[in-house]
Amino acid sequence: MGCVPIKQKMKTGFGRLASLGETKGILFKHAPQVESIEVSPGQAVGFVLAEDVRAEIDVPHFVKSAMDGYAVRAEDTFEAADSRPITLNLIGSIEPGVRLERAIDRGECFEIATGAPLPQEADAVVMVEYTEQKESEVKIRRSVAPGANVVGIGSDIKKGEVVLPEGMCLQPSHIGVLAALGREKVAVRRGVKVALLSTGDEILSPGERLTPGKIYDINYWTIEAALRKDNCEVISLGLAKDDIESLKEKILDGIKLADLVLLSGGSSLGGSDLVGEVIKDLGELLIHGIAVKPGKPTIAGTVQGKLVIGLPGYPMSALSNYYILLQPLILKIMGGKKEPRYTEAKLSRKVASTIGRFEFLPVRLQGGERALPISKGSSAITSLALANGFVEIGENVEVLNKEEKVKVRLF
Amino acid sequence: MGCVPIKQKMKTGFGRLASLGETKGILFKHAPQVESIEVSPGQAVGFVLAEDVRAEIDVPHFVKSAMDGYAVRAEDTFEAADSRPITLNLIGSIEPGVRLERAIDRGECFEIATGAPLPQEADAVVMVEYTEQKESEVKIRRSVAPGANVVGIGSDIKKGEVVLPEGMCLQPSHIGVLAALGREKVAVRRGVKVALLSTGDEILSPGERLTPGKIYDINYWTIEAALRKDNCEVISLGLAKDDIESLKEKILDGIKLADLVLLSGGSSLGGSDLVGEVIKDLGELLIHGIAVKPGKPTIAGTVQGKLVIGLPGYPMSALSNYYILLQPLILKIMGGKKEPRYTEAKLSRKVASTIGRFEFLPVRLQGGERALPISKGSSAITSLALANGFVEIGENVEVLNKEEKVKVRLF
Repeated sequence: MGCVPIKQKMKTGFGRLASLGETKGILFKHAPQVESIEVSPGQAVGFVLAEDVRAEIDVPHFVKSAMDGYAVRAEDTFEAADSRPITLNLIGSIEPGVRLERAIDRGECFEIATGAPLPQEADAVVMVEYTEQKESEVKIRRSVAPGANVVGIGSDIKKGEVVLPEGMCLQPSHIGVLAALGREKVAVRRGVKVALLSTGDEILSPGERLTPGKIYDINYWTIEAALRKDNCEVISLGLAKDDIESLKEKILDGIKLADLVLLSGGSSLGGSDLVGEVIKDLGELLIHGIAVKPGKPTIAGTVQGKLVIGLPGYPMSALSNYYILLQPLILKIMGGKKEPRYTEAKLSRKVASTIGRFEFLPVRLQGGERALPISKGSSAITSLALANGFVEIGENVEVLNKEEKVKVRLF
Repeated sequence: MGCVPIKQKMKTGFGRLASLGETKGILFKHAPQVESIEVSPGQAVGFVLAEDVRAEIDVPHFVKSAMDGYAVRAEDTFEAADSRPITLNLIGSIEPGVRLERAIDRGECFEIATGAPLPQEADAVVMVEYTEQKESEVKIRRSVAPGANVVGIGSDIKKGEVVLPEGMCLQPSHIGVLAALGREKVAVRRGVKVALLSTGDEILSPGERLTPGKIYDINYWTIEAALRKDNCEVISLGLAKDDIESLKEKILDGIKLADLVLLSGGSSLGGSDLVGEVIKDLGELLIHGIAVKPGKPTIAGTVQGKLVIGLPGYPMSALSNYYILLQPLILKIMGGKKEPRYTEAKLSRKVASTIGRFEFLPVRLQGGERALPISKGSSAITSLALANGFVEIGENVEVLNKEEKVKVRLF
């Protein structure tokens, strides 16, 4: 029959809902800080710096040529002009990487390649275009000021300067800065370990036979992909059935192994209450229901001092909560300071919102200028699969008009 | 002394420079297509789909409740109102995942949880807020239309529909779609194998002792980080000295192992000509110098049908070329169709540009609205480390004014 005794607990609704701001505040307050590890710069991209990177050398650490041309003493060229070239003696040619021991004397020049070190006493480079070389003499057709076409010591990075600050999320260009300094190791926060668990008697694993009433697990895979993209280490706790003992055991396993336990709630009758009961039994319940649409049935608490967060069962709600709550939390745990990216667009149609609720509105950007709201409902994973960003509708906003300019946060 | 015999080749300049459009066209024409591989959806995030993903099931594949409440036959509720509730017989309770065999009869209802399957003949759900239950009777205070609070078969994904098209770059929400379909495997293009090589006698590896005239290798690490972020497999060819035989050997090694060989040029006298000579000897030289600032000394050709690309030695130029040329090329090789992301901002100052040259202008976005041009010069890696995006200045643009609106492409 599939009918079970009627339960009373369905009626227990949510109490006062926590606002998005309160929820973040509570999660951030209980956020652990993960330790720093030493990695080679090549391994550090996407991670958060755990040190102020101070330059121990100047970059460049010698005066070098910015051009192919002739290294000169600028004062020797002051009289030079197209109509009245001056002639310098060519002493030799300097390639990058060589060590020069001979300084330049008055009336002399060196052929020099881009990146090669200037000889002592030389202070400028005349570009090859303005010269004419004949055996060991070079005619200079243009005067240069001291410092012309020269890259000075420390002009890229000054010794002693903090060139990358702690908390920076490292991009390829920052890896380049570490390389320029010759760093073999750099301190970054290790990836956050997240224990991930799906709950629900109706949930099937990929490849299992689909029977009536059952559904494939979506949230585990969606959230796992998002976590991995954000450099987290995902510890799979598998699938828990909707019973208290099984849930307790999994959560305690997760607490042992991870920095954070994440459940994607089964959507069972009173399912979120089950998670709530378990958290209450094992630790402290901090949040039960948030004023966010979609995403209301969100729950959070601490067990042995570690955060346990229950996401809604609806796939879109689980993933939208990831973007608005978990991604900032993970960054906070890593001590990172990256700002989300926004672009501006005009809404293609009017959108109504509920006063008192923060709303997550998935949109598809078209031509970079129009934002089309996607509204297949929070149970539809395709709502987000069609979107490439979202609009954050504040708690006090009742309507966004057609053609209104909105800030779109990009995935 | 560090002086070597004077060479003539420094004078060999670039011929006609290829425009950015031409350069892309030539590279794309010679882009290989990498084979597709089968991976589990969990491994596929960030990769490009190599198949049209067609739904083999409806999602959901049964009618389910969108709310906690009571499953009813809508017509039984048509007379219901707050002032005049109607009463239905409560038959049982339905949890998600159960298989129901009993249909609903006239005048009956089932307690039902969000996500649970509706019994046969039921066509709507009354939200628990509008009901009152007393033992085996439920008072219904509001009428519902057929389909109310119900998620229909295929409302998220319809069986037979192509739900993710070939060429899509997979994000977490797309992994969710694959999971919803119960897919165990998905065909994606494998990561592009790039053989990477630094050249230059002046180049040191991290940790080596810095001596006058030498510099640490920046480009290898910067480009490697960028490639890895884009899911490429990097094959290190190490460091080549500036001599033809050593370069040839390395390039031929790379051709054997990779889809593409990438050299970051030593900035030695005539260094790019050396790469050009080697490419000419081994295969065909296609591009020698491009009308892009920075980034002019870029070289490309084919060896045994595979692309060999020489990037400029200047760190900023090498990385800016990565963003404007290599990233699109890699996406092309994977058959991907991802669009770059832009945001709009106002320039904080006037910027002059050269007619006939495409210019890459790194900027730092402030407050999401102002773009501050960063101009430390193309030899400075910090130019890009300070930026979080860039403006693409077209070939026919001579000036961008202060306060002018520009499109900023985000890193």
